[in-house]
Amino acid sequence: MTASQPVERVTSRRSTQTAEPKWWRVKYFRGMINDVKRRAPFYWSDWKDAWDYRVVPATVYMYFANIMPALAFSLDMFAKTNSSFGVNEVLLSSVMAAVVFSLFAIQPLVIVGVTGPITVFNYTVYDIMASRTNYFAFMCWIGLWSLVMHWILAITNSCNGLKYVTRFSCDIFGFYVAFIYLQKGIQVLTRQWQAGEASAYLSIMVSLLVFMVAYICGAVGESKLFHRHVRKFIEDYGTPLTVIFFTGFVYIGKMRGVELLKLPTSKAFFPTQDRSWFISFWEIPVGDVFIAMPFAILLTILFWFDHNVSSLIAQGTEFPLRKPAGFHWDIFLLGLTTGVAGLLGIPFPNGLIPQAPFHTNSLCVHKTVDDSNEDSDHKGHSHRVVDHVVEQRVSNLAQGLLTLGTMSGPLLIVLHLIPQGVLAGLFFIMGIQALQANGITAKLVFLFSDKRLTSRSDPIARIERRAAVWAFVAIELVGFGATFAITQTIAAVGFPIIILLLIPVRTFLLPRWFSAEELRLLDAPTASPFTMESVGGNYGEVVDDVNADSSASDGSAGKDQLAEDEAERGEALGFQQESAEGRTRSRSGRRKSFRRSGEGDEIELGKVPSSHAKKGTNSRHE
Amino acid sequence: MTASQPVERVTSRRSTQTAEPKWWRVKYFRGMINDVKRRAPFYWSDWKDAWDYRVVPATVYMYFANIMPALAFSLDMFAKTNSSFGVNEVLLSSVMAAVVFSLFAIQPLVIVGVTGPITVFNYTVYDIMASRTNYFAFMCWIGLWSLVMHWILAITNSCNGLKYVTRFSCDIFGFYVAFIYLQKGIQVLTRQWQAGEASAYLSIMVSLLVFMVAYICGAVGESKLFHRHVRKFIEDYGTPLTVIFFTGFVYIGKMRGVELLKLPTSKAFFPTQDRSWFISFWEIPVGDVFIAMPFAILLTILFWFDHNVSSLIAQGTEFPLRKPAGFHWDIFLLGLTTGVAGLLGIPFPNGLIPQAPFHTNSLCVHKTVDDSNEDSDHKGHSHRVVDHVVEQRVSNLAQGLLTLGTMSGPLLIVLHLIPQGVLAGLFFIMGIQALQANGITAKLVFLFSDKRLTSRSDPIARIERRAAVWAFVAIELVGFGATFAITQTIAAVGFPIIILLLIPVRTFLLPRWFSAEELRLLDAPTASPFTMESVGGNYGEVVDDVNADSSASDGSAGKDQLAEDEAERGEALGFQQESAEGRTRSRSGRRKSFRRSGEGDEIELGKVPSSHAKKGTNSRHE
Repeated sequence: MTASQPVERVTSRRSTQTAEPKWWRVKYFRGMINDVKRRAPFYWSDWKDAWDYRVVPATVYMYFANIMPALAFSLDMFAKTNSSFGVNEVLLSSVMAAVVFSLFAIQPLVIVGVTGPITVFNYTVYDIMASRTNYFAFMCWIGLWSLVMHWILAITNSCNGLKYVTRFSCDIFGFYVAFIYLQKGIQVLTRQWQAGEASAYLSIMVSLLVFMVAYICGAVGESKLFHRHVRKFIEDYGTPLTVIFFTGFVYIGKMRGVELLKLPTSKAFFPTQDRSWFISFWEIPVGDVFIAMPFAILLTILFWFDHNVSSLIAQGTEFPLRKPAGFHWDIFLLGLTTGVAGLLGIPFPNGLIPQAPFHTNSLCVHKTVDDSNEDSDHKGHSHRVVDHVVEQRVSNLAQGLLTLGTMSGPLLIVLHLIPQGVLAGLFFIMGIQALQANGITAKLVFLFSDKRLTSRSDPIARIERRAAVWAFVAIELVGFGATFAITQTIAAVGFPIIILLLIPVRTFLLPRWFSAEELRLLDAPTASPFTMESVGGNYGEVVDDVNADSSASDGSAGKDQLAEDEAERGEALGFQQESAEGRTRSRSGRRKSFRRSGEGDEIELGKVPSSHAKKGTNSRHE
Repeated sequence: MTASQPVERVTSRRSTQTAEPKWWRVKYFRGMINDVKRRAPFYWSDWKDAWDYRVVPATVYMYFANIMPALAFSLDMFAKTNSSFGVNEVLLSSVMAAVVFSLFAIQPLVIVGVTGPITVFNYTVYDIMASRTNYFAFMCWIGLWSLVMHWILAITNSCNGLKYVTRFSCDIFGFYVAFIYLQKGIQVLTRQWQAGEASAYLSIMVSLLVFMVAYICGAVGESKLFHRHVRKFIEDYGTPLTVIFFTGFVYIGKMRGVELLKLPTSKAFFPTQDRSWFISFWEIPVGDVFIAMPFAILLTILFWFDHNVSSLIAQGTEFPLRKPAGFHWDIFLLGLTTGVAGLLGIPFPNGLIPQAPFHTNSLCVHKTVDDSNEDSDHKGHSHRVVDHVVEQRVSNLAQGLLTLGTMSGPLLIVLHLIPQGVLAGLFFIMGIQALQANGITAKLVFLFSDKRLTSRSDPIARIERRAAVWAFVAIELVGFGATFAITQTIAAVGFPIIILLLIPVRTFLLPRWFSAEELRLLDAPTASPFTMESVGGNYGEVVDDVNADSSASDGSAGKDQLAEDEAERGEALGFQQESAEGRTRSRSGRRKSFRRSGEGDEIELGKVPSSHAKKGTNSRHE
């Protein structure tokens, strides 16, 4: 914050505040045009700013964080679509998305690739349609219809509706994705009996070991162990290294004698099935073209929600971003990649959770702040805060090109060595880590915690009706349960509708059952007003309500609570008008602090130097 | 502390302080007689005080905590002594020890049974001698010689040497025992290939699941989750319930088809081999009787050390005990049980780590103290401290009688259902939990921690020469390495010698390499001066230096650090003359806090009501 601020935040907020147009009075193209106008001045800097060391580890990390789950999903689709989709299709989809979004997106931080929900979508469509029509041509038409729908949504500024997408629906969707991970892991394991009993139990054993080692790596990353560079290395590369280690592990000793199922791969750069990359989309009855339309609607709902939520979380309140966001334009681009993916017969890519926020996180540059506080126990202590994020396009592009390299012959042979049990372990660790970071988990932990040991400074603890917290969590779990349940049926493709229904539930129903104060403590906007400028600000927030998080935002509960306490007392730091925002940050801080409980005292109360916070305030008003 | 103090501490300390006799000027029987004199007045109260609810859960908990590892060790001995020892021998040994020590010991809190080291001893003797002599008769002679040696040690007040047994040797021994656990677990698993590949991998899978679930149960016990009764239940019964659950688990689904090795059992109440319970110890060449003597010396060294250390830790500084200890008399009793065990052909029992301290811990009665501190974050918060320990003989006796019941036919059939893989998991969880609680681990964690995040209030952080900490830990690891290495050879029976050598190393060598200040921060007496009264006080401590821990001693780092800070500042609470003791407690507090890092803020700084601490001070001076 002090020295190198390559770009100051550009705020045109007052204009948005005054006479904000109702979002349904459509000014066609308005959103996309504004997005491009806001971001274009930064395009050159997006390449120039990439001359930064952080880009190197971020690229390597994202390559593994993107490709590992992609491989796991390819295994799932391979098994469930009669090898219509395999490793090459999934990799090509990731490459195309990375190239398109890194070059042309408004927000190049959002990593785009193949997700769990699209895996479910693909094999459910296969179950329903493969027996009666040309599957690839049908999927292609879904993609083409969806392209049209995406573009309509982009042109009509539909992303303005994002102001109604709060943590409530994001958390439910995240919970759903986490359980899909866990379920996929178990499904992979149940298939291992095909190769015999010994290989089934060996696979389970390996999956448990992968899970445990990767979990320990994650825990080390959040501990105080080792120098922070070492710790960060273990956290960043622990999971890929674990996968590599256990891929070799099963070939030693007595395990060598056990036949294990591997990740199926095919010829380099060619489709898994014997076909060309271009789909003959005209080889399908005309009637089926129109049957593809309702599927395209479901796909579009899913992508509109999933991609926007990925983007929101990747630009969450904890990241001090300085370059403007642009949701409308990126949905337009997403339509394009969806259509092209349909023509190539590859899975449709969209924004990845949790990889997108991981990407932003890996680009954070920290600085150490000395504590000037008089607290005797911690005197002379220091803590680290995020100084800025290296916002650029190179890391996204580079990880895409690395993925392209992985499609070459030699690397495909390496991929073929990976036992399926290792990928099952990968599913488990992704699922558990996603659950740990989820807001529903945090609320459940609060509810099941010993009341006598609960800190009263926890915002949720201020809700007088404890039943309200129970009810809120119950609604979230019902939402999750409905989504997850429908995924288990032939109607699985319909799950985006339930996700979409959550938004009006939050906007219209919840305020009838909960007081405004309760909802404020239980729920919050996902991204800051700065990010939400593209879509007209957050719901129920005064747009002028500035984002105090732009400076010190290491995400520690302690510090955020301080900010909140001070906000409430109306003291110092110029927080007087920011109490709502302060609470928002406190809640996201609490969620993060749940993941980092081991670090509880790493950052103490009262350690935000006032100069620091004031600087943040100033920069926003420039 | 406030209301019900059944027994006030009886201190005759001044007499010990003035003109303390050198311990080698032997006044025969002096130690034993004093032990009995001090404890006899409390004998009736040891039964009367057992009318307390804590005795019920403590009994059930100790039954499982004692029998589970005993079964695991019986499996190990069964395999390695050609079934000379089996489940029945191990159970009978535990029963005998429990009855003798609960009825006649000075300190009935110490749980006595079959340990890992004696398992190593038994099968090493088997390896060396079984081919050339009558194994049982030979073991019997070892027991009889050892009986004589124990009695000599008791009569000559040898336990006065315990003042030189500090955390240094206790930690190394504990580290060694933990690694024996882990090694046994792996050895059990390697034997599973006998039943085929599928059964080997299924066993490994089950052992990993047992480990994970038991670990989670332990973690829940140290978290803030659930009401404290539920939390305590999960912590206390998590491991036994896990073992029971997974014993059933392997009989469901596809696993039913896999043949697993089970815990071998035999006829109820009969020896595993076809023999009578009484060993014909005369059926052995006279020469072998004398060959048994050096083995007996090694056994005696092991037991003197192991039993006394178990007793010390069970009476550690964190437990506010009010009834006097007696090391000399208990060594006399241990000689008796050793001889009898030899005559019955069962493994020699001795004090159990970690079960003995777990027993004391399970008998602690807590009370909640409201925080009167002004700290805004924690106002109105409360924390729990140990009020007193239910010191009695019934829980030890009752768990022994339950074990006797386990030797009956129906329960043996149940035991026979336990797959060996489950017992391997039990070894893993015991080993890892022992490592986590170990002082060497705590120092390693300190050394590998990020210096920038280390609290300066950590006592070790005050050592200016960081190399000194490294050197101290290195010496501890060399001691551990030597002990563990010798255990892997045919000379394994010799490992007690290395353990014994640690005591003079600490007393004579370490002071040459480390300053007194460094040693004070790196090492500490294991038990409080009150406990050490039986053996003439702690080494290097002024005997009058009272035990401030007798009152509030929940063992939290925060509180202890407070006490230490205050001790250093010489403020309040009458701690002025107790700074050395204060630091001692702080170190043991830190070690405990390592195990409980999740509870870091459960007990806040500055929450020891001064009336509370003063009361403790008063009671000690009565």
